[in-house]
Amino acid sequence: MPDPTVISIDAMGGDFGPPVIVPGLAGETGHWRAKNARFLLHGDEAAISAELKAAPEFGQLCEIRHTDRAIAGDEKPAQAVRRGKGTSLWNAVEAIRDGRANAAVSAGNSGALMAISKLILRMAVADLERPAFVAPWPSSFGLTTVLDVGANIDCDAHRLIEFAIMGAAFHRAMHGVERPRVALLNVGEEDQKGHEEVREAHRLLREGAFVADYRGFVEGDDIYSGVVDVIVTDGFAGNVALKTAEGTSQFILGELRAALGATLRGRIAAVLARSAFTRLRARIEPDRGVPLLGLSGIVVKAHGGADARGFASAVRVAVDLAQSDYAAEIKRNLEKLTVPQQSQSVEKLG
Amino acid sequence: MPDPTVISIDAMGGDFGPPVIVPGLAGETGHWRAKNARFLLHGDEAAISAELKAAPEFGQLCEIRHTDRAIAGDEKPAQAVRRGKGTSLWNAVEAIRDGRANAAVSAGNSGALMAISKLILRMAVADLERPAFVAPWPSSFGLTTVLDVGANIDCDAHRLIEFAIMGAAFHRAMHGVERPRVALLNVGEEDQKGHEEVREAHRLLREGAFVADYRGFVEGDDIYSGVVDVIVTDGFAGNVALKTAEGTSQFILGELRAALGATLRGRIAAVLARSAFTRLRARIEPDRGVPLLGLSGIVVKAHGGADARGFASAVRVAVDLAQSDYAAEIKRNLEKLTVPQQSQSVEKLG
Repeated sequence: MPDPTVISIDAMGGDFGPPVIVPGLAGETGHWRAKNARFLLHGDEAAISAELKAAPEFGQLCEIRHTDRAIAGDEKPAQAVRRGKGTSLWNAVEAIRDGRANAAVSAGNSGALMAISKLILRMAVADLERPAFVAPWPSSFGLTTVLDVGANIDCDAHRLIEFAIMGAAFHRAMHGVERPRVALLNVGEEDQKGHEEVREAHRLLREGAFVADYRGFVEGDDIYSGVVDVIVTDGFAGNVALKTAEGTSQFILGELRAALGATLRGRIAAVLARSAFTRLRARIEPDRGVPLLGLSGIVVKAHGGADARGFASAVRVAVDLAQSDYAAEIKRNLEKLTVPQQSQSVEKLG
Repeated sequence: MPDPTVISIDAMGGDFGPPVIVPGLAGETGHWRAKNARFLLHGDEAAISAELKAAPEFGQLCEIRHTDRAIAGDEKPAQAVRRGKGTSLWNAVEAIRDGRANAAVSAGNSGALMAISKLILRMAVADLERPAFVAPWPSSFGLTTVLDVGANIDCDAHRLIEFAIMGAAFHRAMHGVERPRVALLNVGEEDQKGHEEVREAHRLLREGAFVADYRGFVEGDDIYSGVVDVIVTDGFAGNVALKTAEGTSQFILGELRAALGATLRGRIAAVLARSAFTRLRARIEPDRGVPLLGLSGIVVKAHGGADARGFASAVRVAVDLAQSDYAAEIKRNLEKLTVPQQSQSVEKLG
């Protein structure tokens, strides 16, 4: 039997801590056994043990690593880096560097997780300011991988290609799609559309062998259409898209409630349709963990407000990535983007 | 009695032409009388006269300007400029330049309208590549003015301030808000967030007197919240936001239909809620005309698929703008943005 995959868990992160995280993981004990996964639970030993008592079978897959320190949800990244040593989040990430874990999962403070992960693990993609954020976006046919949705604001063509490489590797590892279709987000589909950075990345992706199936430009409404698997954009436009989509769905669901509440027929309809609305909400807001892309190591961020199922699904992401060829594939493809390719590009521009 | 406000109409533009445009305008004859508005209807005399026969009272407010040439919906802007002379769209815009009309309205080809308007009227804002697109965005409290949503892709701080000035003047003229609250779209609310262009525009808007009530940065989800009246962004991020919002609402409404259709209770609910859903759709997709901002003259674009009411609402926009202080206000505020302000800004940066 091969070595187990060890996932390092920040048990104190997120809005709820051990009372949600431990039962969430315990509920999928069969899956972890099948995947040969084990856990290091970082945090308050008493709180974690109390939860494990109710789940003795799951407890056999765990070791507790006690610390009484944790990072607050509102702590600034710079402060978290200075004072974070010995906290549950820090220790969870450090276990990867020290070879004791294959991946880490935290529902804690995003900025702190990003800064501490970068400090401890370093970037595998040296050119990035910080790990890229990827969003699993619901579409009519499943989930589309969109990145960067807010970590790296200024992006030249080179950086956009790095996102394409990482996004394709992530999508393949997560969804088993052999040749993910990759596109660049733009304001139109013709070659001359958009700013210089996106046009240059388009030219290089079409010519280069960075991703197997490059499909050109798509527009904002294509994020939902499922015409491609991976959509690449800079962190500014990506964050605007993500927040606008959140705002749009909140607005529509609010208006829907108001429209139904305005009449008796509507109120009856709302009662009849309750389970349909619950399914709708689950489709619109997929509660998935997202990896911080570009680090030397697998760190997955669970949503701060994740419930037991949501946290467990983030841990499934960590297990799947750790057991895939993801990290090696990114490394192989990034190597194509080094000196020879760059000088070739400069020559052509000159 | 003062001179009437004359609106020049491209009667052949859009998906339907005279059979929708003429009855649409005729339906609001009382409003036009109250506003002292008159119309030049450019297009095929026989087709227009046939429609006017059914609306003799409205006919008294109109003069027909015959042409048998029109611009196709799919004609490329460059081609439209070369071959457009004498078409209904061209003649509608030309009437402004020649002092025969105060504003023009077309539901025709957007690219052609923009290119021909720029050629005939010239830009009042010399710095812009082309007229800015403004989107009236639904919010919980009415409509938020968002610009540029796709015309000007590369925007420095100077151009963002021009959008702020034009957006504020437009919002005031349309909604009677004395001091519209203006914000810049960004990826966070702190001063150091975002790229250099948006931070520099932020600094100048805070210090300068370009808009009366500048509120700082907002994020994508604030577009719907109604916390500000005018949101300014570059044409790339603005177009991504607009298209993503369209994609999000199509996706949610599609999923809603699917979720309701999946069960008998849901299907009954859908029947009961039909009128609520119709109201919801009207709230989500406000069918409003939008002016091309930055031209020396008022040109309003109606939606290509506008129905009679939609077209009439675009003409109301044109009348309101023509009768407001809008153009003079933009001119006054843009003057503050000329040489002295620019050199001051360079000094501070140096």
